[in-house]
Amino acid sequence: MPVPRTVEWVPDVPGRLAPGHVRMIDQTRLPAELAFIDTADVRAIWAAIRSLQVRGAPAIGIAAAMGVAAAAQAAADDDPAAVVAAANRAAEYLAGARPTAVNLFWALDRMKSLAARSRGLSAPALKETLAREAMAVRDEDAAMCRRIGELGAALLRDGDTVLTHCNAGGLATAEFGTALAPIYVAAGQGKKIRVFADETRPLLQGARLTSWELMQAGIDVTLICDGAAAQVMKEGRVNAVLVGADRIAANGDAANKIGTYGVALLAGAHGIPFYVLAPTSTMDPRTPDGSGIVIEERGAEEVTCGFGRRTAPEGVRVYAPAFDVTPHALIAAIVCEKGVLRPDYGRAIAEVTRKSAAPAACR
Amino acid sequence: MPVPRTVEWVPDVPGRLAPGHVRMIDQTRLPAELAFIDTADVRAIWAAIRSLQVRGAPAIGIAAAMGVAAAAQAAADDDPAAVVAAANRAAEYLAGARPTAVNLFWALDRMKSLAARSRGLSAPALKETLAREAMAVRDEDAAMCRRIGELGAALLRDGDTVLTHCNAGGLATAEFGTALAPIYVAAGQGKKIRVFADETRPLLQGARLTSWELMQAGIDVTLICDGAAAQVMKEGRVNAVLVGADRIAANGDAANKIGTYGVALLAGAHGIPFYVLAPTSTMDPRTPDGSGIVIEERGAEEVTCGFGRRTAPEGVRVYAPAFDVTPHALIAAIVCEKGVLRPDYGRAIAEVTRKSAAPAACR
Repeated sequence: MPVPRTVEWVPDVPGRLAPGHVRMIDQTRLPAELAFIDTADVRAIWAAIRSLQVRGAPAIGIAAAMGVAAAAQAAADDDPAAVVAAANRAAEYLAGARPTAVNLFWALDRMKSLAARSRGLSAPALKETLAREAMAVRDEDAAMCRRIGELGAALLRDGDTVLTHCNAGGLATAEFGTALAPIYVAAGQGKKIRVFADETRPLLQGARLTSWELMQAGIDVTLICDGAAAQVMKEGRVNAVLVGADRIAANGDAANKIGTYGVALLAGAHGIPFYVLAPTSTMDPRTPDGSGIVIEERGAEEVTCGFGRRTAPEGVRVYAPAFDVTPHALIAAIVCEKGVLRPDYGRAIAEVTRKSAAPAACR
Repeated sequence: MPVPRTVEWVPDVPGRLAPGHVRMIDQTRLPAELAFIDTADVRAIWAAIRSLQVRGAPAIGIAAAMGVAAAAQAAADDDPAAVVAAANRAAEYLAGARPTAVNLFWALDRMKSLAARSRGLSAPALKETLAREAMAVRDEDAAMCRRIGELGAALLRDGDTVLTHCNAGGLATAEFGTALAPIYVAAGQGKKIRVFADETRPLLQGARLTSWELMQAGIDVTLICDGAAAQVMKEGRVNAVLVGADRIAANGDAANKIGTYGVALLAGAHGIPFYVLAPTSTMDPRTPDGSGIVIEERGAEEVTCGFGRRTAPEGVRVYAPAFDVTPHALIAAIVCEKGVLRPDYGRAIAEVTRKSAAPAACR
């Protein structure tokens, strides 16, 4: 595992999962300090998601699922209906923490659906079942990321240099990450892979998180300002761009951290393949194209005084979209746990997101 | 005048220019504080250029010219040859402060050439002549910027929104700026012009300087992260991109702050005209194309801990080119004080940089 577990479920007593609590790396304190948040309080989990202490679409989904399991524990042990109600309330509440990441809604729906299906159980058994489901969300994510890494590694040659934006690494998921998974897997296969990490303003996930976790894993990483990506590409130093996604529409349009769309255009202008790596849970077949994806706007202070001192005039107007949408035409492949999807993405995404889709659907 | 004078010459006694000293806005302290540096010490002027207390190609040229005039004052009043020698020594020394801005070398050559031509004068007269020449560099720059503003304003329609990168404003020049001059002039003509300012990492000249001086002048400005430029363009909110230049090669390839080349590619992808605005002193006919322009590399600490706290892991490798080169094919026009140049830039630049070129050469 490249980095410590980003989000995990910690049972409070041996031999059973519930009661338990969530342990998350506080990513706002990296790279200065590796600190953890231990909590069973759904409000603290909401706040951790909101404030990006836990971030990355898959990690948000895991934290939210665990938040539902933690909230359900507060209900009395003789009232199964109260457990279900507490789980549903928590799910409704947590859904408001971040608007763009579809994994959040996917994970919450999964927990609500399980609660609804488990009404016949005793309250303690229900709590145990919800905790197990939340752990399953995590474990499945880890397995998916590993599979994305294996499939993505096949796209990289020994000696390649990859450029990535934001952090779609181990810190954004259970382990391994999505965009960084191929790098970890390829390195494990003995390939020499170098990485340019965009620092990714305003919150510097590339500087704070991607470079940190790659250095932890012994990967050769060079940090650049976002504005230097075009220059690095022009110098012929980038063989592929790997990024994650927060939501992928039915036609392959992919929402990811602000700046990704620009990187995709720059890659296109330099003939560099641009790959999106994300689990199928990131795909939203109900959203026909990128125009239907809600783009969260962040507060001005992340831009004007995010580094410990004010770097812009008091009162300056700021526009701070958190995400942008890369049109599918700029994407060379979408790598999910079920395969490497190539255009026509509409057909490929429909196949992999169909219930019990066969892996054969993907190339 | 939109902002206080960026660099000026302050005579120490009334009625004559020498002895005098240089007064510069300390741009590293903006926007928190409007502070000035008053000095006649050539080492302090070198350090101010090096550390970007004074920055922007034209302002660097002015500061350097004034630095030569200030250094010449240290020579004895009965030794004209010592005045010339002091001026030449200062010019050699100041040339090493920043390697990319051609205005620096242009201004220093002008001072050296004047000193060489003035050997017949007394030492006091030589000192006065050098100070007058440095003031002329400033005044001519102010006039050039105003002319660039008038020519550039004709490219803007009432209601247009402009995107700019870095600071090629009043703070980068004597007054008015180059890229921002058309905005000031258009606003003075009653046109409503809005501006998106890229914050411009690593040193945040857009956040700290461009947004500050535009707000001072009452211009409607919105600050964005560099990575948001593509999204703002995609939203159809940008009618033109205006940037300055630190050096323009004979074929029109233009070096400017890192990130400019990427913005030019993004503008091209969205069908938005990309204009470079710079005086002819920025043009370097001896450099055939952009491949011959030396790109300064800056220190890692500007990226990893530029704002009061460390934002990247200790020991991370950083690549921090200060400039990039935008190929001429991406430039819709180059606006200089002699006209609006259109392709073929090779011919147009040769005409405007020929000694006593006629303005008729430009469109």
